[in-house]
Amino acid sequence: MNGENFGASERLVDAAYVRQGAQGRRAHELRLRALLEQGKCPEDGWNESTIELFLHELAIMDSNNFLGNCGVGEREGRVASGLVARRHYRLIHGIGRSGDISAVQPKAAGSSLLNKLTNCIVLDIIKQSGVRTATSCFVVPMATGMSLTLCFLTLRHKRPKAKYIIWPRIDKKSCFKSMITAGFEPVVIENSLEGDELRTDLKAVEAKIQELGADNVLCLHSTTSCFAPRVPDRLEELAVICANHDIPHIVNNAYGVQSSKCMHLIQQGARLGRIDAFVQSLDKNFMVPVGGAVIAGFNDSFIQKISKMYPGRASASPSLDVLITLLSLGANGYRHLLKERKEMFSYLSTELKKLADVYNERLLDTPHNPISLAVSLEKLDERSNTAVTQLGSMLFTRQVSGARVVPLGSLQNVNNYTFKGFMSHANDYPCAYLNAAAAIGMGKQDVDLFLKRLDKCLKTFRKEKTQEKDVPETENFTMDSEIGKENGN
Amino acid sequence: MNGENFGASERLVDAAYVRQGAQGRRAHELRLRALLEQGKCPEDGWNESTIELFLHELAIMDSNNFLGNCGVGEREGRVASGLVARRHYRLIHGIGRSGDISAVQPKAAGSSLLNKLTNCIVLDIIKQSGVRTATSCFVVPMATGMSLTLCFLTLRHKRPKAKYIIWPRIDKKSCFKSMITAGFEPVVIENSLEGDELRTDLKAVEAKIQELGADNVLCLHSTTSCFAPRVPDRLEELAVICANHDIPHIVNNAYGVQSSKCMHLIQQGARLGRIDAFVQSLDKNFMVPVGGAVIAGFNDSFIQKISKMYPGRASASPSLDVLITLLSLGANGYRHLLKERKEMFSYLSTELKKLADVYNERLLDTPHNPISLAVSLEKLDERSNTAVTQLGSMLFTRQVSGARVVPLGSLQNVNNYTFKGFMSHANDYPCAYLNAAAAIGMGKQDVDLFLKRLDKCLKTFRKEKTQEKDVPETENFTMDSEIGKENGN
Amino acid sequence: MNGENFGASERLVDAAYVRQGAQGRRAHELRLRALLEQGKCPEDGWNESTIELFLHELAIMDSNNFLGNCGVGEREGRVASGLVARRHYRLIHGIGRSGDISAVQPKAAGSSLLNKLTNCIVLDIIKQSGVRTATSCFVVPMATGMSLTLCFLTLRHKRPKAKYIIWPRIDKKSCFKSMITAGFEPVVIENSLEGDELRTDLKAVEAKIQELGADNVLCLHSTTSCFAPRVPDRLEELAVICANHDIPHIVNNAYGVQSSKCMHLIQQGARLGRIDAFVQSLDKNFMVPVGGAVIAGFNDSFIQKISKMYPGRASASPSLDVLITLLSLGANGYRHLLKERKEMFSYLSTELKKLADVYNERLLDTPHNPISLAVSLEKLDERSNTAVTQLGSMLFTRQVSGARVVPLGSLQNVNNYTFKGFMSHANDYPCAYLNAAAAIGMGKQDVDLFLKRLDKCLKTFRKEKTQEKDVPETENFTMDSEIGKENGN
Amino acid sequence: MNGENFGASERLVDAAYVRQGAQGRRAHELRLRALLEQGKCPEDGWNESTIELFLHELAIMDSNNFLGNCGVGEREGRVASGLVARRHYRLIHGIGRSGDISAVQPKAAGSSLLNKLTNCIVLDIIKQSGVRTATSCFVVPMATGMSLTLCFLTLRHKRPKAKYIIWPRIDKKSCFKSMITAGFEPVVIENSLEGDELRTDLKAVEAKIQELGADNVLCLHSTTSCFAPRVPDRLEELAVICANHDIPHIVNNAYGVQSSKCMHLIQQGARLGRIDAFVQSLDKNFMVPVGGAVIAGFNDSFIQKISKMYPGRASASPSLDVLITLLSLGANGYRHLLKERKEMFSYLSTELKKLADVYNERLLDTPHNPISLAVSLEKLDERSNTAVTQLGSMLFTRQVSGARVVPLGSLQNVNNYTFKGFMSHANDYPCAYLNAAAAIGMGKQDVDLFLKRLDKCLKTFRKEKTQEKDVPETENFTMDSEIGKENGN
Repeated sequence: MNGENFGASERLVDAAYVRQGAQGRRAHELRLRALLEQGKCPEDGWNESTIELFLHELAIMDSNNFLGNCGVGEREGRVASGLVARRHYRLIHGIGRSGDISAVQPKAAGSSLLNKLTNCIVLDIIKQSGVRTATSCFVVPMATGMSLTLCFLTLRHKRPKAKYIIWPRIDKKSCFKSMITAGFEPVVIENSLEGDELRTDLKAVEAKIQELGADNVLCLHSTTSCFAPRVPDRLEELAVICANHDIPHIVNNAYGVQSSKCMHLIQQGARLGRIDAFVQSLDKNFMVPVGGAVIAGFNDSFIQKISKMYPGRASASPSLDVLITLLSLGANGYRHLLKERKEMFSYLSTELKKLADVYNERLLDTPHNPISLAVSLEKLDERSNTAVTQLGSMLFTRQVSGARVVPLGSLQNVNNYTFKGFMSHANDYPCAYLNAAAAIGMGKQDVDLFLKRLDKCLKTFRKEKTQEKDVPETENFTMDSEIGKENGN
Repeated sequence: MNGENFGASERLVDAAYVRQGAQGRRAHELRLRALLEQGKCPEDGWNESTIELFLHELAIMDSNNFLGNCGVGEREGRVASGLVARRHYRLIHGIGRSGDISAVQPKAAGSSLLNKLTNCIVLDIIKQSGVRTATSCFVVPMATGMSLTLCFLTLRHKRPKAKYIIWPRIDKKSCFKSMITAGFEPVVIENSLEGDELRTDLKAVEAKIQELGADNVLCLHSTTSCFAPRVPDRLEELAVICANHDIPHIVNNAYGVQSSKCMHLIQQGARLGRIDAFVQSLDKNFMVPVGGAVIAGFNDSFIQKISKMYPGRASASPSLDVLITLLSLGANGYRHLLKERKEMFSYLSTELKKLADVYNERLLDTPHNPISLAVSLEKLDERSNTAVTQLGSMLFTRQVSGARVVPLGSLQNVNNYTFKGFMSHANDYPCAYLNAAAAIGMGKQDVDLFLKRLDKCLKTFRKEKTQEKDVPETENFTMDSEIGKENGN
Repeated sequence: MNGENFGASERLVDAAYVRQGAQGRRAHELRLRALLEQGKCPEDGWNESTIELFLHELAIMDSNNFLGNCGVGEREGRVASGLVARRHYRLIHGIGRSGDISAVQPKAAGSSLLNKLTNCIVLDIIKQSGVRTATSCFVVPMATGMSLTLCFLTLRHKRPKAKYIIWPRIDKKSCFKSMITAGFEPVVIENSLEGDELRTDLKAVEAKIQELGADNVLCLHSTTSCFAPRVPDRLEELAVICANHDIPHIVNNAYGVQSSKCMHLIQQGARLGRIDAFVQSLDKNFMVPVGGAVIAGFNDSFIQKISKMYPGRASASPSLDVLITLLSLGANGYRHLLKERKEMFSYLSTELKKLADVYNERLLDTPHNPISLAVSLEKLDERSNTAVTQLGSMLFTRQVSGARVVPLGSLQNVNNYTFKGFMSHANDYPCAYLNAAAAIGMGKQDVDLFLKRLDKCLKTFRKEKTQEKDVPETENFTMDSEIGKENGN
Repeated sequence: MNGENFGASERLVDAAYVRQGAQGRRAHELRLRALLEQGKCPEDGWNESTIELFLHELAIMDSNNFLGNCGVGEREGRVASGLVARRHYRLIHGIGRSGDISAVQPKAAGSSLLNKLTNCIVLDIIKQSGVRTATSCFVVPMATGMSLTLCFLTLRHKRPKAKYIIWPRIDKKSCFKSMITAGFEPVVIENSLEGDELRTDLKAVEAKIQELGADNVLCLHSTTSCFAPRVPDRLEELAVICANHDIPHIVNNAYGVQSSKCMHLIQQGARLGRIDAFVQSLDKNFMVPVGGAVIAGFNDSFIQKISKMYPGRASASPSLDVLITLLSLGANGYRHLLKERKEMFSYLSTELKKLADVYNERLLDTPHNPISLAVSLEKLDERSNTAVTQLGSMLFTRQVSGARVVPLGSLQNVNNYTFKGFMSHANDYPCAYLNAAAAIGMGKQDVDLFLKRLDKCLKTFRKEKTQEKDVPETENFTMDSEIGKENGN
């Protein structure tokens, strides 16, 4: 409703009331304006009404929603199913253009605005979450792994000679694959055991660079967020090494935005040394559906180069999800979620420790890991060589999701590379263990239910010991042992 | 409602009516069953009610929707915004697993089913549309260009020595970039002019392979759907050349599923020679939002290899869109759309010819191109050197989208490669021209409006000629000349 | 997005594209303006996008959606459930005020506009459908029967002495009850049999008025739409009688808007005699969910008096439904539906006749009924005294809805009044019969399926006759015999 | 998905995961079953997913959603607009049948279930809220006032001689009109002033009954919830009077469900004397959109008689809203809302008192009113004879909704009856005042904002006093003075 329409309304409804209605509209418009002008996440969240109005406004700026449009191209944003059109708020043209995923589309001013604004808001949140000097980022509708691949592919053009990527080991297939897919040879640096923790072996990194020759190294590929007892890589030192050897440095910060520690490491790394880009998952940090990542960095032109590597237009769906989410939370709401996560981590940690004591197990001491915890399963493992895997299956069938049991000595071949002790980030970690994490959005109820169910499962084993012949809930064990092990992978 | 619940309902409502209600439910279930058992696109489309019921059923099979779930992992399908949860029908876990985009997720049986079914249905439609011997395909939430990149990256592991990709020229940035991004050197084969048509220069292809050595060639990268006057590549002959030289062959079939000619070419190519994979856009063929592609082929193990190259989980959004769309259309509905498109192409062709005659221009004779048409702009071009671009701007401001004017002699640098005559697929095409296409979903109204507006624009120029000093609607010409040219790119 | 916001958008997206987006918005606004200024149903239907934008705009004019509102009353439009808020587009305040259902609410300018516009548009459609001189109407969220009650209650204040309502018999409970509920004594005028048709006995009406004395008669309550073989009342003559005796005349036009004949009768009645109000169902005429009626008339002040009789605010839901529906159809679309209905009536009529012939039954000759048809069931009735009811059950279980079998000699007591031959509108109609109607929205598929199933059912009986002992599908007959008879009531 | 479908799914996805999905489904079904079997509001609220699944299940039990249905009646649940169908979850047939709003529809088992369940759940909540011995209730899609009318119309058939309704005065138009519309003569009993409170004058009631003769009195019409300084009627004593004189007793409990005091009064009245029915608004008690009421009582057969008075089918929309709302809140959630309301009332009361003191006004002492408060405006009124109304306008333009200023000496004619001191429930209340209420769903923010704005408005007047000539914000005063006064009516 514009001024003329409000005027016309006064024929039907008293002018005083219409005027107040117009004033009501104005308040929504002012919110939009602040967003458009500042390009920042609003401090307070918007309600659904404002968000939907906003999306509607964006949609009618796209040519497929023009009342008088005629389309004679091969891609006109036509949609066959009303269900589909509605769930995308009729924003059909995706993001980007043939040659640049961050580019503006002439046919779709609204979708283009959405894309730009999303990138602005996400950058704002990244800065507020600790990487204050980040200058540029963009949302890409691909997995974190595939986004890392895109970074590596971009670097290839800068370093045509390079074949290797130096990579402190982390046992997650997609991390390893991101390098393989890009066509490089990962050079695995085994972690060093310090107390219970697995930490970056800086000397090995340095030695490897020298051995291979800096020019032959495409980049260093480090990791922040990971399962305990591995802890975030020593980013500061690694960044300095990269700076010294003039080697690019790409950080896998998969679910690190939610942790001030991980973000601080990146900020420090960039300040003291070199970080070219850091990549994070949308779903793991912003509570949206799986499907997108953010590639961020400190140098506009390099980040732009990456965005220009994506050939073709892309799905706007992940951008839309994160835009809606951040607008509805507001910066305030997001901070609140981060604070709650921290508290939940501390609660989970305390309670897990108590439970571990009961069963003569140990909460592993991993103070550098701000998200994931590990409890030893030594006693359980001693019982039988399948007990650990059985525990995994039992938790799965009891609707505990995300808990991960790690038995000793798993071998795993990934793209012709054999990992010993797979899942434990080390060839010979001293004991089997169970992982649990306190990730963003977790509630106290999750922790309590988990502990109760875990307790019950462990009790079954203890009972089993006494009565030897009682096999606990055998039916569950027929399940694919994969479930037990990889549940959280 | 299961049997017990229907039983309980009889306490409140007469048993005879409840029984009929249960019978009503049964009919929806039977549809689902047929789908699950046959894995084919239903012949008749489903109504929204059945589709939504189905999606709801899938959603409650995912752990994030379990009423008693507790999540202690780092990725639990938690969603902060209700708007976001609803628009994805609460299917949050995406598709695939860490190492394979086609893999099943333990946490998300419903999403996994969705993924599998979508791939089955899309394969069914590809077969029905003409590539009868295709054996495997998967939907990937990436642009066609990026999907081509993924194919090339997969081939690298099979042909580590290869550096070149042979590519009959097509002037679309993302096609070229797909090879650059993958880290290969595109070897451009200029098209040969046959009548008005630009066709594959088979001899040049053959010669280039010999020159480079087959082992150094990663693959041949051919194209079906393209803007006239370029026509689909001679796939049959190219496939034979590939077979002879043992060179992989990847086909860019971007918007070719909608054309029986393009599909026939692929089928013939595969029958007579070698095609390893063909890639098509979801949005351009299935009337869904931008964002996904289908990678299909004739060899399960190769297609699976590609799907295993995608590192990480991916967005289910494009899969969901195409699933909803094909279920709502049914195979019948899709065939009907294809038939309509053919009719519209023929109508557009006839009418454009008439209009061209009026202005002493010519509908270029491009019988091998089943989707795109071109009208010469020779007379217009003679008028002034900006007239062609001006026409583009005028069409844009009149809400004609997708029409593309192609002036003579554009130079364009793409990733350090300079294209002469860019947009025309040839260094020196004889005349400037205008493109219009009849793509799936186009209506008669689109054609009529387009012709009316084009007529009006051309008239303006004619008038201008007579009255020399009258500049027609100058304000439009202040627009970025980019718009005029690249409108449809 | 207002001008300022579009301006701000140009910082992010090229001005030329934003300008075109603004132009796109403008087209929607112009539609709204035409509606607000003319208060007529738009000629062409609006798409969902414009409709939702419009509803969104209305909603933010209501105080419950003001961003800065504080509510300290007992009714503030607060909604506990998001599902509920969304399904009402956040229009929560209903329609009307404490003393008048058509009044404007200070708290809810948007809802008030909605209410006014709906009434305008519905009036426009009523006029276009044939009652050209109607001057006033309002939508009321009550059944047709309850709306008639409201009319009678309003008349009470004008005619305090009156106790009787003269009512040409129509066998539908709610019609009779509408008078009982209002506290009046219905005076039933039996219909006269003319050929197969049951028509108004004008002499009996005249005689009854004289017998009771005009002053003791509250009004005449006539009916247009009804089941064959009853036909619409002779409205012209009745209206003249009313005028002559100075008796109010209320017409039950339940599903008559869809028939030009019914509407013509009302127009003629009002022209030649007296009609005070005519009442129609929303769901039966406008394809919306059950729940509303329209009270219309030729005298503003009387119609307004009725609207002031409704004590309290009322549900906006039926108004919203009819508004959305008429905006999406447009006047064009509605006319098209009426045209299709007429064709379907003629098709149903022809086909039923053929089928009747096969079974030696007769399509009753009821040329004055434009919607409903009747087929005799004489032969069937001769077979056994339950055969007719059995046929009803059989049709019901075969998912034929709305078909109504009418056996001979049913007795029915409604509020202490006993109707002989209930359902047949006459004490002794000559034969049992089956009703089928061609109502708005019916498709050819409905007719074909119905005829096929009816044929099958009738065949069963014929077979049964020959093989005496074969009871056809007995289980169905265990159903409540009510179903068979009242299926369509 | 039934068992067979889960089985078929195992072809595509591992059986173990499918089994867990089936188990996930089972949990939702168990919730449904508990509801169907117990007919009670679930203790804990359901999430949206379960609610939508439930509604979807209901919808596919209705014949309009049968895949093989053919409809040949005049009312087949066809819907022209997809928007409309969706917002009603495709439940189109409304509730009730031609002769009874609580009856089951053969065509619509799902809608019928919905209707029955809603009535069960609402009854459960009414009992839990304090009227433990209520035995029967039904939701009716009409305003509280119109529902009262329906009760009166029902009583007419029991007491054909009666003409009068005894009514302790409450100044709300719809209350008065409910009797007028039903065709009765309201006999207004003025309230007696006790301290600041206006309370029922029991003696006057008793005297009036004797004067008119009990047989001539249709019923006593009392009120619980009302604006201070009127307080709920003395229900216990009135119920005893009714019992003694054998006079029916209808209670207007408009927004009383939210107050344990009001509910207690009804429970006590029914226990000690006679209450035939009590009527409450849906929107005011259950935070749903305006449009429905609940008629409840202690005698099944009388309540059923009322439901049989509604001629025709009715909108299911209000039933659907309250069903969704109560399922999503759960009994727990509803109790929590009631508790919060009580706290908010006490907070509002304390803070208003403080503010009143500042301006030398008084929070009127009305301990018997549990919802509404009144602050004297004596000082303000002394200033000028329009100041009180001006305050109302000022609050309105500042987006304070629901606050009500009551000047002295308003005269209002309602249906030929003149009320002196209208809005104050008394001919000569001692002072002008302002009302504010703490109704269900009010938040602390509402109270704080209200007090801040009220303070600011009152300050303006004080300033005005000092500077005599400064008229504060004159523009607002041009508003319809109606707004000031009736804002909350």
